[in-house]
Amino acid sequence: MSRSKKQLHLNLFLRNTGHHEASWRHPDSQPGGVTDIAYYVRLAQTAERGKLDSLFLADSYGLPPTMQFLVQQALEPFTLLSALAMATSRIGLIGTASTTYNEPFHIARKFVSLDHISGGRAGWNIVTSTGNATAFNFSDAPLPEHSERYRRAGEFMEVVRALWDSWEEDAVVGDKENGLYVNPAKLHEIRHAGEYFNVRGPLNLPRAPQGHPVLVQAGASDTGREFASSLAEAVFTAQNTLEDGQRFYADVKARMLKHGRSPDRMKILPGFCPVIGDTHAEAVEKERELNELTQPEYGVYRLSNLLKMDLRDYPLDGPLPYAELARNAEINSQKARHQLYLELAQRENLTIRQLILRTATSRGHYSITGTPVEIADEMERWIDAGAADGFNLMPPCFPTGLDEFVDKVVPELQNRGLFRTEYEGATLREHYGLAKPERTSGQRAVAAK
Amino acid sequence: MSRSKKQLHLNLFLRNTGHHEASWRHPDSQPGGVTDIAYYVRLAQTAERGKLDSLFLADSYGLPPTMQFLVQQALEPFTLLSALAMATSRIGLIGTASTTYNEPFHIARKFVSLDHISGGRAGWNIVTSTGNATAFNFSDAPLPEHSERYRRAGEFMEVVRALWDSWEEDAVVGDKENGLYVNPAKLHEIRHAGEYFNVRGPLNLPRAPQGHPVLVQAGASDTGREFASSLAEAVFTAQNTLEDGQRFYADVKARMLKHGRSPDRMKILPGFCPVIGDTHAEAVEKERELNELTQPEYGVYRLSNLLKMDLRDYPLDGPLPYAELARNAEINSQKARHQLYLELAQRENLTIRQLILRTATSRGHYSITGTPVEIADEMERWIDAGAADGFNLMPPCFPTGLDEFVDKVVPELQNRGLFRTEYEGATLREHYGLAKPERTSGQRAVAAK
Repeated sequence: MSRSKKQLHLNLFLRNTGHHEASWRHPDSQPGGVTDIAYYVRLAQTAERGKLDSLFLADSYGLPPTMQFLVQQALEPFTLLSALAMATSRIGLIGTASTTYNEPFHIARKFVSLDHISGGRAGWNIVTSTGNATAFNFSDAPLPEHSERYRRAGEFMEVVRALWDSWEEDAVVGDKENGLYVNPAKLHEIRHAGEYFNVRGPLNLPRAPQGHPVLVQAGASDTGREFASSLAEAVFTAQNTLEDGQRFYADVKARMLKHGRSPDRMKILPGFCPVIGDTHAEAVEKERELNELTQPEYGVYRLSNLLKMDLRDYPLDGPLPYAELARNAEINSQKARHQLYLELAQRENLTIRQLILRTATSRGHYSITGTPVEIADEMERWIDAGAADGFNLMPPCFPTGLDEFVDKVVPELQNRGLFRTEYEGATLREHYGLAKPERTSGQRAVAAK
Repeated sequence: MSRSKKQLHLNLFLRNTGHHEASWRHPDSQPGGVTDIAYYVRLAQTAERGKLDSLFLADSYGLPPTMQFLVQQALEPFTLLSALAMATSRIGLIGTASTTYNEPFHIARKFVSLDHISGGRAGWNIVTSTGNATAFNFSDAPLPEHSERYRRAGEFMEVVRALWDSWEEDAVVGDKENGLYVNPAKLHEIRHAGEYFNVRGPLNLPRAPQGHPVLVQAGASDTGREFASSLAEAVFTAQNTLEDGQRFYADVKARMLKHGRSPDRMKILPGFCPVIGDTHAEAVEKERELNELTQPEYGVYRLSNLLKMDLRDYPLDGPLPYAELARNAEINSQKARHQLYLELAQRENLTIRQLILRTATSRGHYSITGTPVEIADEMERWIDAGAADGFNLMPPCFPTGLDEFVDKVVPELQNRGLFRTEYEGATLREHYGLAKPERTSGQRAVAAK
């Protein structure tokens, strides 16, 4: 085993019964597990047995109108990840929180609290929310425009990072004899007064073990990429081909330089959905079995929702209405995903039904059906080609798809010297090889009031 | 042991190094533990060993300007309680969340998630926040008026309870064969449109195991008592004497009748701070030792802050400026506590220094210094006199004050037939002997859109 090879990073994207939209109907799946902590504990411990870098929970604050077909993310990320912190000891814990429907003080604090509880394993997947199913749970106003959401996100991050820096690392003295618990000169108000937020600070708990929890982002638009390049330390992305992956990788790392950041301060992790068989034929059969469980009504809904156009009146076995869809791209809050679907359908000349099946496994993320060797080959190819620093692993079906990956693909990657055989660090930052951020200065000490 | 006696309920009020304001300076205390999950796990497991009903975390969203003197609550309640859910199996988990600085959707969801994770052990201590240290972390506006906060709280609760009812108990079908995960007829939008909130619903996770997490409140004002009487299932309260306790108990239970609620649907739990010694003299010596560690600068600050008047210019060994303080009562957002301190000082004819010491142990809550038998006697007296259904236990110093209580006072209570020797139920509702709430009807099904 050679350690001179570039090491890849693996994040497990947890998602109830699995990433295939019909996974919950598979005989192996446990749809009752989605509110059962024991189910998640088993998944988390399996991922940790595989020495994966991290767990990731997506999230939204609204229920899609298709619950009858599908198990959605059920448990809430801060509560679920804090519980999983207790059932694991090394794996990173990345939770999603929206900058559009939260207050920076609460979010800053909860991530620091999770970071303390987990001994430095917290990460934040920063999103700006999509869809009115979320918006209407917070007001009667629809989702703000894309640019508006990102302007708020920018200010939100400014506040959160200042709050994270509001306690210096050595602020807690704990000097019983002299009665000095905290050195007030090392606590800082932030006095933020901006367009969206007024926050005085300081935060009400000591600095996070990681300094700052790891910042993760998945924005794909131009604005999203700028945002990620300016601050993200890991990026989750949907790339359908290695070439698209290379273009994205090169673009985002170049943007980092523009922001004065070294490209090695961010790991780019495309979604990767492996359907694993001991033989290629067995893997193909597994995928067929899952696809047969899909429900066309749901597929049409999913596509209509993603493409912001009601497709129920179009024949399932005909082509997409490309001209109308191209016009819709502009009003879509998920422009990049919209574009990815259209390109995929055109490139592979797919009917609506075929596009539904083609994206049932991983919703537009890269998916591969094959043996452990074939899958490891493909991962290595992406890493070597500069298309990825690792992957956001999306097993089609839990728990079996994860078990197979850990038992069969991970050893193959380890044998090739591409992946750790033991955790070397204790924190998520250490797993990803990311430096601790420096404290920003210039804040006023509380004592100076 | 006779089970015909009224059983008392015990909640452990967790508070960093303890409830005595100087506890963190005591040789036994572990101020470094306040961000260490292992420290809290040990406390929670000790409480569970003692068969206590529940753990309770107070909370606020701002840092008082006296951090140098005192360890504040550090870890955030949702994250900490979710972690403790994994280290315990029976004890209830009550967290504080404010209706003034949160969104009902987020709060409704996090408590349901905690209830799933803990198998039905979640409780919510509903507060409306106090103080501008909190207010200025969310906007440049000061804390809203008392009546305004309670008006918002009322509507907040209406929204949260409707969200909790937005999933019927049997909504999740999980029928793999027919592809029906949820029965959409059993999911309900709430379409709340009110003065403060517009929330469409439904919630995005299945109904809580307890139906509703247990509702806890601690309001002491007339408005606060009305609010508690209308919905709370447990009330934490500060009562300095048994007679005050009786008056409060009778008043709140009478108000419940007015709201059409049976008085046994609420447990009244006054704060109870025991300083325990094997002999009475040893207990007195323990209290003296703690009081000697207090810092007058902090005590004066605490009193000034509570009474909304700067007391630094008044002699420590003189009386309180009663006339001026009486005028301040009206502007105080904690009127009832203000009144309690003034009555205590007048009744016992205390100087400022003496009042500081008198309230250093438990901040105006009832405190008792004595042997396990003396302490059990007093608890029994309060229960028999109709002043309490149990107590909110406030050990002066962690972990020792809790260890002593569990090892010495709990067996004494058990021997008297006043307290359980084993958990009989699995949920917090069952520990408190509270019925599961009925679903409100009249919401529209999602499918009916």
